[in-house]
Amino acid sequence: MSISVLRTADAWWVLTPDGAVRIDTDATTTADLLADRTAIEAARKGSDTTPVDDLTLVSPVTTPCRVVAQMTNYVSHVRDSGMNPASVPLTFFRKSSGSVSGPEDDIVKPAHVRLLDYEIEIGLVFGATLPVGTELDSSNIGDYITGLVITDDVSARDIQLPRTQFYEGKSYPTFTPVGPVLLLLEEGEFDRFHDLCLTLRVNGDVRQHSTAAEMIYSPLETLRALTRFQRMDAGDLLLTGTPGGTALKAPAKPIEILGSLVPPALKWKIFFGKQASNPRYLRDGDVVELTISTPDGALDLGIQRTTVRHGH
Amino acid sequence: MSISVLRTADAWWVLTPDGAVRIDTDATTTADLLADRTAIEAARKGSDTTPVDDLTLVSPVTTPCRVVAQMTNYVSHVRDSGMNPASVPLTFFRKSSGSVSGPEDDIVKPAHVRLLDYEIEIGLVFGATLPVGTELDSSNIGDYITGLVITDDVSARDIQLPRTQFYEGKSYPTFTPVGPVLLLLEEGEFDRFHDLCLTLRVNGDVRQHSTAAEMIYSPLETLRALTRFQRMDAGDLLLTGTPGGTALKAPAKPIEILGSLVPPALKWKIFFGKQASNPRYLRDGDVVELTISTPDGALDLGIQRTTVRHGH
Repeated sequence: MSISVLRTADAWWVLTPDGAVRIDTDATTTADLLADRTAIEAARKGSDTTPVDDLTLVSPVTTPCRVVAQMTNYVSHVRDSGMNPASVPLTFFRKSSGSVSGPEDDIVKPAHVRLLDYEIEIGLVFGATLPVGTELDSSNIGDYITGLVITDDVSARDIQLPRTQFYEGKSYPTFTPVGPVLLLLEEGEFDRFHDLCLTLRVNGDVRQHSTAAEMIYSPLETLRALTRFQRMDAGDLLLTGTPGGTALKAPAKPIEILGSLVPPALKWKIFFGKQASNPRYLRDGDVVELTISTPDGALDLGIQRTTVRHGH
Repeated sequence: MSISVLRTADAWWVLTPDGAVRIDTDATTTADLLADRTAIEAARKGSDTTPVDDLTLVSPVTTPCRVVAQMTNYVSHVRDSGMNPASVPLTFFRKSSGSVSGPEDDIVKPAHVRLLDYEIEIGLVFGATLPVGTELDSSNIGDYITGLVITDDVSARDIQLPRTQFYEGKSYPTFTPVGPVLLLLEEGEFDRFHDLCLTLRVNGDVRQHSTAAEMIYSPLETLRALTRFQRMDAGDLLLTGTPGGTALKAPAKPIEILGSLVPPALKWKIFFGKQASNPRYLRDGDVVELTISTPDGALDLGIQRTTVRHGH
């Protein structure tokens, strides 16, 4: 059965039915912790429990680490983005790991950002080095993907879209809330991946709700593409794309074609002018709640609850 | 006066008028070396020289490190790319540091890549941690940018363009040749930056030839933008964009507008069909030679000479 690991500022914990048990380890990084499986197993059988509500949780993925993300990978989000699911290429970009924050931290909107959006994503946590050129199949993928986490790929749309490259608009501090749970999978549990159900609520309203079965590229296809050019190491993080329901909706095709006739600056002015009246973008004080689990609860990544704050 | 540092598999060297002098240091990373300024200064005054031609040089920037790159940053390349220099945003993307290779290494084209292109760029090497939010001005930028290197931002255009995100198409192994010289700047020498002249030749023919004065965003503007979201550490590398003259030329505006009317897959098929007959893309055996220096030779980053090989 999977193991739920939590992290506080000074300790690692295993979640048990009776509460959290502290892991007896010197690990300061996620990579170190994953290498100390004996200590994790010991905590799992421990009885000295602490109520989880007494813990102030931080990201169970420590930084610096590589944060690689997949572009459009759910049919519904591809449609929202004005693209065709049948022809969308398997595409990666990077986020700064300085954007990683905790599952209870505020999402801080930089003062120059106007259109702040959310994206719930399943995060894959690597437990071993995956060199470029590694041959992967369904029998060995579990040797590299050790854990799963909830991630929010927070996006400044007014920065991201005119630049075409997603890196800056998704890399500001607090733009990748991670956790609370780092779910360590046992033998065979990776087969349940497509049953994972993702739900994101803003102030209680469901905005995104889908399952991993909707993914266009499976984790195996994704890792095979990634290992063409990017080595990954233990503790690194891969975000696997978001389903539909973000605040952003692409313009309809005829408007996009008209857009190609006007200078880019004017096109974006018109587009963002319209988006500014879209009430779905995140506002100061909004509470964003994310859950990812299988319907039977066998795999459960916990509840991430963050609050949006406007920076100065 | 600036100091030219070279690196071989097992040692660091300072270039003197009489040859290379080995640096007496335990440094194994660029960050370690930059922290050992005393050893560098001692080597500069050393007399036990080795002919540079006897050295097999590797990249003076060690990996892993962050490799951040700027998109379109020279007026001539912006025009080549079908954009307007007056409105092009300051944009960053990431390259994998696994793409870094040496100044004499082969550039290996992966078997699935068809359109292999070159891009000469001045690389800025960080000598100190630059935290997010650091206030920068012309008087302190030299505290963070310690050195300059020649870089080639090798690009698989048929991967890069349809994906829109540049990360994969520029991150395959050997897609960032670096060196030979890591030029350490002395007080005030950063002021000569705009005098740097960049020249890239393929089999002796000049393909790119420009100066840093043509840059749209100066290093200071660039770093101010970068520190909004990305921390940099000693040994990290920032590529500052390439001038015009790459093999790729964007389609003319009317063709681009027609392109927005057809499905993306067809648009790219037509575009790459045309590009395939473009003789400027790199071919097996091509020799790519890059130089960057001021006209008076006061700042000289050496000669990078690589050969293109088709992978299997």
